[in-house]
Amino acid sequence: MTTPELTREHARALDEADPLAPLRAQFDIPEGLIYLDGNSLGVLPRATPARVQQVVAQEWGQGLIGSWNTAGWMTLPARVGDAIARLLGVGAGEVVATDSTSLNLYKVLDVALRLQRHDAPQRRVIVSERSNFPTDLYIAQSLAGQHGCSLRLVESPGQIEAALGPDSAVLLLTHVNYRTGRLHDMAALSAAAHAAGALTVWDLAHSAGAVPLQLQADGADFAVGCGYKYLNGGPGAPAFAWVRPELASHEAQPLAGWIGHARPFAFVPGYEAGRGITRYLSGTPPIIALAALECGVQTLLAAEPLGGMAALRRKSLALTRLFSEAVEQRCAGHGLALVSPRDDALRGSQVCLSRADGGYAIVQALIARGVIGDFRAGDAESQVPDILRFGVTPLYTRFVDVWDAVEHLRQVLEAGQWRDPRFQQQAAVT
Amino acid sequence: MTTPELTREHARALDEADPLAPLRAQFDIPEGLIYLDGNSLGVLPRATPARVQQVVAQEWGQGLIGSWNTAGWMTLPARVGDAIARLLGVGAGEVVATDSTSLNLYKVLDVALRLQRHDAPQRRVIVSERSNFPTDLYIAQSLAGQHGCSLRLVESPGQIEAALGPDSAVLLLTHVNYRTGRLHDMAALSAAAHAAGALTVWDLAHSAGAVPLQLQADGADFAVGCGYKYLNGGPGAPAFAWVRPELASHEAQPLAGWIGHARPFAFVPGYEAGRGITRYLSGTPPIIALAALECGVQTLLAAEPLGGMAALRRKSLALTRLFSEAVEQRCAGHGLALVSPRDDALRGSQVCLSRADGGYAIVQALIARGVIGDFRAGDAESQVPDILRFGVTPLYTRFVDVWDAVEHLRQVLEAGQWRDPRFQQQAAVT
Repeated sequence: MTTPELTREHARALDEADPLAPLRAQFDIPEGLIYLDGNSLGVLPRATPARVQQVVAQEWGQGLIGSWNTAGWMTLPARVGDAIARLLGVGAGEVVATDSTSLNLYKVLDVALRLQRHDAPQRRVIVSERSNFPTDLYIAQSLAGQHGCSLRLVESPGQIEAALGPDSAVLLLTHVNYRTGRLHDMAALSAAAHAAGALTVWDLAHSAGAVPLQLQADGADFAVGCGYKYLNGGPGAPAFAWVRPELASHEAQPLAGWIGHARPFAFVPGYEAGRGITRYLSGTPPIIALAALECGVQTLLAAEPLGGMAALRRKSLALTRLFSEAVEQRCAGHGLALVSPRDDALRGSQVCLSRADGGYAIVQALIARGVIGDFRAGDAESQVPDILRFGVTPLYTRFVDVWDAVEHLRQVLEAGQWRDPRFQQQAAVT
Repeated sequence: MTTPELTREHARALDEADPLAPLRAQFDIPEGLIYLDGNSLGVLPRATPARVQQVVAQEWGQGLIGSWNTAGWMTLPARVGDAIARLLGVGAGEVVATDSTSLNLYKVLDVALRLQRHDAPQRRVIVSERSNFPTDLYIAQSLAGQHGCSLRLVESPGQIEAALGPDSAVLLLTHVNYRTGRLHDMAALSAAAHAAGALTVWDLAHSAGAVPLQLQADGADFAVGCGYKYLNGGPGAPAFAWVRPELASHEAQPLAGWIGHARPFAFVPGYEAGRGITRYLSGTPPIIALAALECGVQTLLAAEPLGGMAALRRKSLALTRLFSEAVEQRCAGHGLALVSPRDDALRGSQVCLSRADGGYAIVQALIARGVIGDFRAGDAESQVPDILRFGVTPLYTRFVDVWDAVEHLRQVLEAGQWRDPRFQQQAAVT
């Protein structure tokens, strides 16, 4: 099937027909900016500044210590967790919003390894991908050292099933790969892990709020995810953790702080883990940050009357499809290769391109034009390409934004603008 | 020496002569409130709402992902750490602001136990106090289980030195006891620990910003502390960690997240711990909360031209001395006992009273009058008394506040007001 020639009018028509278009008004997006980095830091919800100000000036400033009760601070990690649970297809009381993704991964992976050590001590391998987000691998390395386990890192998704066997303790995967945008089949891989006797730990950093999830049905045993990408919770927002309810009251997680205690205000010297997911809390909850995260999650729940995550997913796929097709039609001959999967079933909410050289400068040239994507360096030695990464967030990305972004990309390439020395210099953070 | 009869005029005169009095104007304290709970949640600095709003609306809302570079977000944990370092008597580059006290304690205590396991594997005892803040004991229990260690909990401060011996790995103490307000002699106990071959881990939750510290000189090896008490960082503010520089690049801490990596943006699959204290960072920094914490720490640094922590300490002691003496003069015969030490050298920045019964209701009756202290339940079985706790924070507590608080306490007791049923009912959090 060939794609008819795409036009900006076509993109505008898609926006006009988009039932989710009104959701964009929930956000405060700088005028003229085409922001395709919501997979790194979601944009600011309009409701957030006033809510944060209320927490700071009123709840903290006026209510002071009493706000732990009167403003519901004590229950905020659970309340935000309940809101996130609706995006994960799991029940109220099954999720807590707390700490960072790295720390929550440490908690759940440690518990998974302990469960296996008790029940199947011969299982000492954590199976994951070499291309997994580094923090996941670092945390896994730290715990592998403690538990006398090892990591088995596969080079491509197709090797995962074969890597599972009688020595496997845990399958640890990020649902959508941060570099390639490839989406794993959670149900199939979880089933394969369970058939091999392994537990599953899923990192939802690039899928929570981007693709529909049904963790329980799809065989996840543990999951963690990020609050500042598709959940729009703000820079460094708290993350979340979910544990299959049947497992949630087994084992105490290692970061055994007072807020996860069964009776935190009894102040007893012996640790007694709270019931279910509450034991995955640790220190005093970060109230201001949780309030901002709550505003972010609410922007996603606002899509529920319009079809919720299923509708957002349809739009996300249409946006990434348009991006990919427009690049292939309009940027042909410039050495770009599509890295993110063409197949809708395999693609998260981002388009990833590669190019033999100039990737960093192209992204910088686009940023100078107000098109914000990002660059992830590859590694020539291990044949990992440089990546130009463009995330779409169906809550606020318009079809015309995608069109215009590709048009800027075409102009940058045709004019060789990226060869300008000012786009070559690498900043500390990209 | 007998104390002359105290009067409100005496308290007013102390305020008038107080060179630190202008520092109170840095805070937004509700009109008429006598807030004596800054040891639980510090009050709101006037600068914080605007700074938080700037971070949310400008840096996040307008700057978006670029603010990691342009707004200095990447270096915020180190910048706030450097500000806190000035309160701890240590150098720039030695402290990071990150995560919670519980999590930071997990990191440093794990490293301390690993160092001992390598150098002195026979040392397998963590010495601490049964009255230490529970989260410290819970974290220690978790790590003791992992390392095959055990806890030795002494019942009183006088037993600490005798509890140290050839089996001791770590002396883990909170510098100022949260219930009694008793201040440990950090130099003497660290020296005793070192003489016995143990490393020292100090929790500064109730001393950072309240008493002068010189961690390096006083023999601390590791220290953690809280951002939301005397540092005025807001509810659940990030905490901090310090490691003696000679030890800071030894061992990787276990919560090995990407931000603590030597090259976080290289995205390599193998963990390589950052230099020095930077390796104690873990996940993505909580920017909004760190910005609020920075405002809080700045309210303390504003005291530097007025004598800094030494001057704040003198005022703190004068405030707690006035409180204690006023209670003894004016509330005599009502069954109150002074739990916090009379000796200035042994007292933190709080006054703690006990009473055989009615403690909870007395605190509630005071709160109804606008005098905010808190209550910590005891345990009759182990002869731990109920505590009525009143924290003073010399940045904003006035001598007349102390006088008036004691006068309210006297009235509550003399009128038996605390017997009113409405003050008996226990809320979820006190």
